[in-house]
Amino acid sequence: MNLPVLILKPQADRRLKLGHLWIYSNEVDVEKTPLKAFAMGEQALVTTSGGKSLGIALINPNGLICGRLVSRDEKYPLNKSLLVHRIKQSLALRELAFAEPYYRLIYGDADLLPGLVVDRFGDYLVVQIAGAGMELVKDEIVEALVQVLKPQGILLSNEHSARSLEGLSEYTEVAYGEVPESVELVENGTRFMAPVRGGQKTGWFYDHRMNRALLQQYVQGKRVLDVFSYIGGWGVQAAVAGASEVFCVDASEAATDAVLENAQLNGVADKVAAIQGKAIDVLKELIASEERFDVVVLDPPAFIKKRKDQKAGEAAYRHINELGMRLLGRDGLLVSASCSMHLGKDTLLEIVRASGRHLDRHVQIIGQGGQGPDHPIHPAIPETDYLKAVFARVYLA
Amino acid sequence: MNLPVLILKPQADRRLKLGHLWIYSNEVDVEKTPLKAFAMGEQALVTTSGGKSLGIALINPNGLICGRLVSRDEKYPLNKSLLVHRIKQSLALRELAFAEPYYRLIYGDADLLPGLVVDRFGDYLVVQIAGAGMELVKDEIVEALVQVLKPQGILLSNEHSARSLEGLSEYTEVAYGEVPESVELVENGTRFMAPVRGGQKTGWFYDHRMNRALLQQYVQGKRVLDVFSYIGGWGVQAAVAGASEVFCVDASEAATDAVLENAQLNGVADKVAAIQGKAIDVLKELIASEERFDVVVLDPPAFIKKRKDQKAGEAAYRHINELGMRLLGRDGLLVSASCSMHLGKDTLLEIVRASGRHLDRHVQIIGQGGQGPDHPIHPAIPETDYLKAVFARVYLA
Repeated sequence: MNLPVLILKPQADRRLKLGHLWIYSNEVDVEKTPLKAFAMGEQALVTTSGGKSLGIALINPNGLICGRLVSRDEKYPLNKSLLVHRIKQSLALRELAFAEPYYRLIYGDADLLPGLVVDRFGDYLVVQIAGAGMELVKDEIVEALVQVLKPQGILLSNEHSARSLEGLSEYTEVAYGEVPESVELVENGTRFMAPVRGGQKTGWFYDHRMNRALLQQYVQGKRVLDVFSYIGGWGVQAAVAGASEVFCVDASEAATDAVLENAQLNGVADKVAAIQGKAIDVLKELIASEERFDVVVLDPPAFIKKRKDQKAGEAAYRHINELGMRLLGRDGLLVSASCSMHLGKDTLLEIVRASGRHLDRHVQIIGQGGQGPDHPIHPAIPETDYLKAVFARVYLA
Repeated sequence: MNLPVLILKPQADRRLKLGHLWIYSNEVDVEKTPLKAFAMGEQALVTTSGGKSLGIALINPNGLICGRLVSRDEKYPLNKSLLVHRIKQSLALRELAFAEPYYRLIYGDADLLPGLVVDRFGDYLVVQIAGAGMELVKDEIVEALVQVLKPQGILLSNEHSARSLEGLSEYTEVAYGEVPESVELVENGTRFMAPVRGGQKTGWFYDHRMNRALLQQYVQGKRVLDVFSYIGGWGVQAAVAGASEVFCVDASEAATDAVLENAQLNGVADKVAAIQGKAIDVLKELIASEERFDVVVLDPPAFIKKRKDQKAGEAAYRHINELGMRLLGRDGLLVSASCSMHLGKDTLLEIVRASGRHLDRHVQIIGQGGQGPDHPIHPAIPETDYLKAVFARVYLA
C-alpha cells in the first residue's frame, strides 16, 4: 500500500511517542505536507520531521485533531485484516472479564480503533462510527465483525452530532442480518431490553456496570430513588438485589415505560415505580412532600459537554447533589455519578463534601467507581477516562 | 465540663467550616490563648476569633497540627459516651458493607475519631492510638469497645513511630480479655491467620479487600506473581479463586512462612510457592531465568513516606513497575498498587503508562481501585484517601 506522507514539525512527535494517538493540525509541517492535499478520512504515513515513521493515521484535513493513529507499524494499514486482529484483541479482554456476551466490545482509542465503538448484546452488535476514516472502511468493519463474532445482526447507529465535524451525515442502518427494535442483555444478573433503535446512544450504558454491582451490596431492604434512571439500569438492579421499594425518575416517557417493562421482566414490578418528569422538579416535589430514601442515585447526563459549559455545568451538578442529599434519611447513601470528562473526580468529591456541610451532615466516601473493564482507559489519553461514581454515606454525626 | 478555650485567628476557622478536623499551630491566636498553656492531649473548646464555638479539639501544644476536632458540639466532649456513639455509627457502616465481622472498625478522622484505629478480627480487636488526646482516654476506649462489641480480647498495638510526635512511648498490651499470637479472619471467602502481635501494623491490611476481590475475576487458570506479598493477601486469594500457580515474594521469612500456612489453611498449598528475598533482587532473577506470568501484583510498602522522599520514591515505583511488567507474557495483567498518599493516582498511572511505552506494549487500564468501605474517605481531608490499585492489561498490539 502506497500511502501519502504527513510530516510533523520538529518535536511534534512527542505526544505520539508517549503513547497518544492524536495529531493536532498545528503540529503538521504544512509547508512540506499541506493538510488540504489529503482527502477526508484518508490514511497517511506519519513521519517525524527527520523522516522517521511513526505509523499510519486517519486524516481529517479540516479538524483541530487532524490525525488519529491506527497503527504504529507502516506495514499494517487499517483494513479488514487489521480490524480482525484488533477485534480479537478487544474480545480477549471482554471474555476474560465477563462470563456473558453483553459488553462494549470496542471502545475507540483505548482499543486502538479511534472513532469506532461497538456494543455487544449477545448475537446483536450496535456500531457507532465517529470518524471519516472509519466510515470509509465501514464495510470492512462489518465483515470483520461477522468473521470474528458471527452475529445475527449488526446495526450502524450513526445519529450522533459529532459526526458533522468529520463531514459525515447521520443515519441508522441494518448493515448485516436482522436487528429487532429492542434486544436483551444481562447485567449483574438482571435482564433488560435495550431499545437499540429508539433509545439513547447504543441503547444501553454498559459503563456503569461495576458501580451498579457495588450498589447491590447496599440496598437490601432499602428504599431507593434512581434519578435520571433511563430504562432502569440502577433501579431495577437494586430491586432485584433486594431493595424494598424503588422509584425511578426520568424525563422521557419511553424511558419510564421501559423501566416498568424491565421490572416486569425480572419479576420485581411490585417494588418498582416510575415517575416521569424533569429531575429537578420531581426532586423538589419529593422534598416538599417530605419523602425520604435510604439510597439516592444521581446519574445525570453530561451537564458539561464543552469547556464553555464548565461553570453552569458545575452549578447544575451542585444543585442536583444538594437536592438528592436532602432526600436521604438520618443515615443514607448517596451515589453521585458523572459521565462528563470535564468534571474532575476531585470536583465531584468537592461537590458532595459541600452538600454535606451545607446540610450539616457528616459525609464518608465509601467507594469511588469508574468505568468497567469493557471501557478501558488509554493511559496516555485522559479523555478516555470520563466516568465517576462517588458512593457517599451521609449521616447526622 | 469546663474546658479551656483555644481561640483561632480571624479567618482561620475556614478549614474547620469546610469539614476538616485539623488546626495548625499558626492558626491559633497565641496572644490570647498561648499553646504552651495546654497540657499534651488536653481537650479544649475551639472558637473563632469572634468567640463563636467551633467544637472540641484534642490539643498537642508542640505539634504543627496542634488540634484535632473530636466534636462540633461543645456539649459532647470526648468521653466514653461519645466513644460509644461513634463506635456504633462506625459499626453501622461496616455491618451494612460486610456480612462477616472482619474489617477496620474505626478509621481515625473519617470516623470522627482522630488518632484512633481499630481493626476487628471477629471476637478480637486490635487498637492503634496515634494521638496524646486519645491516649488519655484509652481506658474509656476499651470500655466503650467492650460495651458495644463484647469481644474476647482487645490488644493495644502501639508500636508505631508516629507516637513520638505526640510524646507517647511505644508498647503492646492486652487491655482486655485474652489475645492469641495470631487470629483468624476471612476476606473474600479466603481464611487467613493474622499475626496481630509480631506482624506488620495491626497484623493485616484490610484496605485492599475490594481490589483483591477484583483480582479474583482475572486469575482463573493463570500463573500469578505476588510481589511484596506479606502473608499472602493477594496470592492466596488468587489461588483460592482458581489460579494455576502462585508465587509470593517477600523479604521477611516470617511472612513467607505465613504465606505457606495460609495456603495450607485454604487447601491450596500445592499451588502456592513462597520466595523469601528482596523484591528487586527476586524480580531480576526471575527476568534473568526467563520466567513469565499472566498476572503480576505489586503491592509495595510506602516508598514515599515524607515529601522529601518524593523523587527517590517515584523512581523506586518506576523501577519496580518496569521490572514487574517485564515479567508478563504477551497479554498479561499488571496490578500496581501504592499505599503512599504522596504518590498521586495520576502519577501512578503515568508510571504504568511509561513502563508500557518503554517495553513497546499497549496498556489498557481496566480498573482503578481504592480503599474499601471500612476505610472511608473524609471528603475534606485528602490525607484519608491514600490507597491506589491500578489494573493494567499489557499486551503486544
